[in-house]
Amino acid sequence: MTFIKTPTKGMRDFLPKEMELREYVLNIMKETYKQFGFEQIRTPVVEHIENLTSNQGGENEKLIFKILKRGEKLAKVEYSNENDLVDSGLRYDLTVPLTRLYANNMQNLPFPFRAFQIGYSYRAERPQHGRYRELMQCDLDILGEKTNLAEIELITAVITFLQRLEFQNFTIKINDRRILKAMLEYANMPLSQMDKILITIDKIDKIGITNVKEELQKNDIPLENIEKYLGLFNKSKDVKNFCKDLPIDTQIVDNLEQIINIVLENVEAKIEFDPTLVRGMGYYTGPIFEIYADGLDSAIAGGGRYDKMIEKYTNMPVSACGFSIGFERLILLLEQKNITFKQKDKYCYVIYPNKDIEQLKTIIKEVNDLRKQEKIVKVVERSKNFKHQKEMLLNEEYQIIEK
Amino acid sequence: MTFIKTPTKGMRDFLPKEMELREYVLNIMKETYKQFGFEQIRTPVVEHIENLTSNQGGENEKLIFKILKRGEKLAKVEYSNENDLVDSGLRYDLTVPLTRLYANNMQNLPFPFRAFQIGYSYRAERPQHGRYRELMQCDLDILGEKTNLAEIELITAVITFLQRLEFQNFTIKINDRRILKAMLEYANMPLSQMDKILITIDKIDKIGITNVKEELQKNDIPLENIEKYLGLFNKSKDVKNFCKDLPIDTQIVDNLEQIINIVLENVEAKIEFDPTLVRGMGYYTGPIFEIYADGLDSAIAGGGRYDKMIEKYTNMPVSACGFSIGFERLILLLEQKNITFKQKDKYCYVIYPNKDIEQLKTIIKEVNDLRKQEKIVKVVERSKNFKHQKEMLLNEEYQIIEK
Repeated sequence: MTFIKTPTKGMRDFLPKEMELREYVLNIMKETYKQFGFEQIRTPVVEHIENLTSNQGGENEKLIFKILKRGEKLAKVEYSNENDLVDSGLRYDLTVPLTRLYANNMQNLPFPFRAFQIGYSYRAERPQHGRYRELMQCDLDILGEKTNLAEIELITAVITFLQRLEFQNFTIKINDRRILKAMLEYANMPLSQMDKILITIDKIDKIGITNVKEELQKNDIPLENIEKYLGLFNKSKDVKNFCKDLPIDTQIVDNLEQIINIVLENVEAKIEFDPTLVRGMGYYTGPIFEIYADGLDSAIAGGGRYDKMIEKYTNMPVSACGFSIGFERLILLLEQKNITFKQKDKYCYVIYPNKDIEQLKTIIKEVNDLRKQEKIVKVVERSKNFKHQKEMLLNEEYQIIEK
Repeated sequence: MTFIKTPTKGMRDFLPKEMELREYVLNIMKETYKQFGFEQIRTPVVEHIENLTSNQGGENEKLIFKILKRGEKLAKVEYSNENDLVDSGLRYDLTVPLTRLYANNMQNLPFPFRAFQIGYSYRAERPQHGRYRELMQCDLDILGEKTNLAEIELITAVITFLQRLEFQNFTIKINDRRILKAMLEYANMPLSQMDKILITIDKIDKIGITNVKEELQKNDIPLENIEKYLGLFNKSKDVKNFCKDLPIDTQIVDNLEQIINIVLENVEAKIEFDPTLVRGMGYYTGPIFEIYADGLDSAIAGGGRYDKMIEKYTNMPVSACGFSIGFERLILLLEQKNITFKQKDKYCYVIYPNKDIEQLKTIIKEVNDLRKQEKIVKVVERSKNFKHQKEMLLNEEYQIIEK
């Protein structure tokens, strides 16, 4: 009989120690988000294949775990294309199901709707360190809030959560997709190629400025325009100063400045306008932001405003703004910090074999009385190798009571 | 563009009210199980197709959501059988993955190992009331405990949990697979047909005694033997008296009596020996038990000892005993009870549009100060239809602060 003991490729079993940390983090997260008036929702991990392949998911759409049709529906299939065989798949993010849930339940939800969703997503990526095929995602969204209250509250909530995990020294980087657009216009770059150009420029840190210039020139952008665009990065990091020569509505700049100033007053973190911040997804329409912890070169949380998405699927104009925590990265960081949890007192009753029923009754009664006093208690039979048993229990931080 | 707003067939979105109840129940469950020394584990929802189709899952194996191979592996397939196309599937229970996790990690786990696992399972059933294709399961297991400490602790833990939900009036029904076997032997019924006969007898409540007799006779069981078997049910419900004419080791009877007596002392619930209790799965090897709430004719939790299963997959003899809560049924029950939760104070700041930055700063500061005092606070812009907005907020039990 074939029985495979390891989890499927790229997925993980979690043993008690790992679960303890994950649950600890999730509890603080839930508690914090609730205090900010966010409400928890949950959606199934299985999603309609039509929704998963609607071009909202970018590269992730290439990584879908697809689920075979069943019974008669499968029997009827003429197999020409793999999509004929499937009717659903595992979600690759929480945004598609959030949009679906909201579209289906708008009438029964508060407006604006503050939602958080914690759940696993699935991506058939080539497994590598820190990349998993089953990964936890934690999304925080405000749907229906058109003002910058959304950005201010989202950023404050996430920073508050991270600080309760005793992380310090954050930098919040913030930009606006409309400023990025104005920068391109200022440098006479073609807006039709906006996503492509921004993705290239975003690679400066990785491939260096010379390679970025080369790649852009290959895409028929004149060197002169490229230089003009890159020249912007030498300007002041004050958003108002930065934008003063750009073709942009001052309201957009004021809006961003307001977010920066108000967040600054409410959290202990640096917040800086960063004109190089791009964010991958093309669906963002306004402010975008990321949180960096000291000493780490990739973000632990990121998000932005995506005012057009819900309308695209529902024909109802609903503004939206969201923040997503890189939960798996956060856990890796916390594992390095070696957090110790405040434990309740733990007792283990180690009892000799073959007790008679009256003795056993007395012991079990005692055990359950201790539990009523909020203690953690377990009972085991004394093993022949008690020395080893004792050692293991002490390792688990149990106080031993021999009976 | 096709975008489907409802969840996939038989699966559910959970809105905040529903999530609140589910989280409330799960928190009490986790807290209780931890006090009994159980530790949480988690396994992926995706499982090797080989493990899902190893005949451990009974009827559930017909209901697997299968996941298509990807990329080159799919391209290479000659499609003759659907199993050629798949490499994995969604788990239909938590027992298969528990066995896998334990087989793979025994050396790093306490012995005996007290584990609990909370997670979703997937079954492609025909949707009907109370049956879902994505269902939460909550399993509690003790692996490696050969004595009846396992049964006693499991039953006490589950009853303690249910009582903390303010359920009252439980009946625990208990039996032993070896007593069922002795009953068949006593009535000269063929042990080779044990599972089939027991499943038929289990239907007395549903189809009536006449039909049961008929069905058994169709399977070549003489009426005389059937009558002898059924006659047992008129005997005393005291386990010792019931078993005194059966061909059974007295240790088995003493063991069961001990469980009954000790559980009785430690929980406020009825516990009764029930020789009609069968439990569906063939893998049980010893005591089996179910918990019934008053007025309900199906169990809300069930379990038993399955001492041979881990050995079957690992060649290591490890005793095992488990209990599974029917979480979705429990939630249905609680929804009928209309539980009210103790809420923290909730405030909503409703602010007039177009505040200047200094006003906004002051308001947001006040909001965050309240949050530091453990209050739940949200901020929304005052809508044109304030009367409606106010009504909705009061419905959500927010105290309104106008600014």
